[in-house]
Amino acid sequence: MTFPTAVKIVEVGPRDGLQNEKTFVPTDVKVALVDRLSRAGFRNIEAASFVSPKWVPQMADGADVMAGIERRAGTVYSVLTPNLKGFENALAARADEVVIFGAASEAFSQRNINCSIAESIARFEPVAKAAKNAGLRLRGSVSCTLGCPYQGEVPVASVVDVVERFAALGCDEIDIADTIGVGTPKRTREVLSAVTRVFPRERLSGHFHDTYGQALANIYAALFEGIEIFHASVAGLGGCPYAKGATGNVATEDVLYLMQGLGIDTGVDLAQVVAAGDFISTAIGRANVSRAGRALLAKAQGAADAANCA
Amino acid sequence: MTFPTAVKIVEVGPRDGLQNEKTFVPTDVKVALVDRLSRAGFRNIEAASFVSPKWVPQMADGADVMAGIERRAGTVYSVLTPNLKGFENALAARADEVVIFGAASEAFSQRNINCSIAESIARFEPVAKAAKNAGLRLRGSVSCTLGCPYQGEVPVASVVDVVERFAALGCDEIDIADTIGVGTPKRTREVLSAVTRVFPRERLSGHFHDTYGQALANIYAALFEGIEIFHASVAGLGGCPYAKGATGNVATEDVLYLMQGLGIDTGVDLAQVVAAGDFISTAIGRANVSRAGRALLAKAQGAADAANCA
Repeated sequence: MTFPTAVKIVEVGPRDGLQNEKTFVPTDVKVALVDRLSRAGFRNIEAASFVSPKWVPQMADGADVMAGIERRAGTVYSVLTPNLKGFENALAARADEVVIFGAASEAFSQRNINCSIAESIARFEPVAKAAKNAGLRLRGSVSCTLGCPYQGEVPVASVVDVVERFAALGCDEIDIADTIGVGTPKRTREVLSAVTRVFPRERLSGHFHDTYGQALANIYAALFEGIEIFHASVAGLGGCPYAKGATGNVATEDVLYLMQGLGIDTGVDLAQVVAAGDFISTAIGRANVSRAGRALLAKAQGAADAANCA
Repeated sequence: MTFPTAVKIVEVGPRDGLQNEKTFVPTDVKVALVDRLSRAGFRNIEAASFVSPKWVPQMADGADVMAGIERRAGTVYSVLTPNLKGFENALAARADEVVIFGAASEAFSQRNINCSIAESIARFEPVAKAAKNAGLRLRGSVSCTLGCPYQGEVPVASVVDVVERFAALGCDEIDIADTIGVGTPKRTREVLSAVTRVFPRERLSGHFHDTYGQALANIYAALFEGIEIFHASVAGLGGCPYAKGATGNVATEDVLYLMQGLGIDTGVDLAQVVAAGDFISTAIGRANVSRAGRALLAKAQGAADAANCA
């Protein structure tokens, strides 16, 4: 397997990232973040979520965010839509892509939404049909593909099964997500190798969390399986705050630095993303958990010479 | 290239880690740390440095540390020795292995020790001879192999040259270090591929810093080159504090978690290392920067359920 010469990085910070922040982020800050990211060159940004504000108050201003952003030509703006009402709002907000979701873990599905995996995905059928009819892109996101907080190991067959269900609903793109960040490269490759046999590899994406520090190793491993789309969150926004300082989504800056070193084109300007990461971290008073981001900021700010540390 | 079934992890926290901490760490804490690590199963621990206390006051108590620790059968205790005086102290302290060092970057060598690479390594000849005569293991550590803070890119030929010089001095083991953490997997493999042509691959080690978040990806990449020895620092101790929160040495817990996931034996008990990382981070009032360490501690402490974060 030769590596791809170019990959698509889906920036999920404004939605998947900010959704997990405790304090409400003002709409104008969200808009400014999305605009900084589109100007940096991302071809796909997860910008908002049209879920019930009762469930996720952080995302209650999705329509305002979508109305406030500049639409950059060539950038796909995605939104999360849990149901037909969410889809209608997404359509009204001129989303380019809607995202539906399901877990590969039966225990996770039962415990979190009180139904089987199969039922949870079947419920998205009206959304999928409506998206197709409206000519919108449809993305399916599969969580817990490398492990589950309740059942531990998740069978590869379960991941394949969910991918097939999303494919049957007409998904244009399907995310293989390591929601709790427990995966390592061997399992990553096993799972990706299996799903590439049932869905076109160029439309599969890797969504890795860095909770155990494994995300970049997993991304590198995924390249060996021919994966060409990766999710990342600027400044490592969001993730799972179950432990102080714990990290969730892999930081975009780290992923871009990796791709740059591998000679793989992303079309994204790393310096602008570093600046966007600094902007949002400062704006919401949160530590910037991107290692490459912090190192490049320190370098740019002319901090004490790295040579003192050899 | 098939992956090795077992690797040796060299725990460098007590020396390379603590050396870069600002506050002096009491001798009894250093001793307790080394003992916790040897009990966890490490076959090699970098325990002290016999450098001038004027240069490195943090390591002034090397003899006391070496006198205070329990010697676990099967564990090699290494110490840094910059000169013959340091070597004599190391010998008196019953070190098993002495470490000499040099940069692969001419600019780094000139700027930091005011002489050429070749001169800097030639100066170690008396130490190397004395070590051989005394029957001690000799390790050579090559810094700046993947980049230099002054000259930027470091030619592969320079790394090969330094490895050959250390080999000529009789080094039993040679470290390929990414001192400032700028490397990515492609360059890592290029450099390792070149040095394995001039020195036995089973006696080469990878010493990666996580400054740009790339360390685990580089370690995974190094496995493809047949590398079987890796350095790591418990709790991510040390590294380069040129930026607030910046990380240096890759955290041992993250490396062990990776190897566990790959089915590669380390002989080290991860839970005990996580506890040791918690112990030293608490003792010196420093954030634990190991992601796997933090995640496993949170899990062990029964913190809020990870499932809330999906």
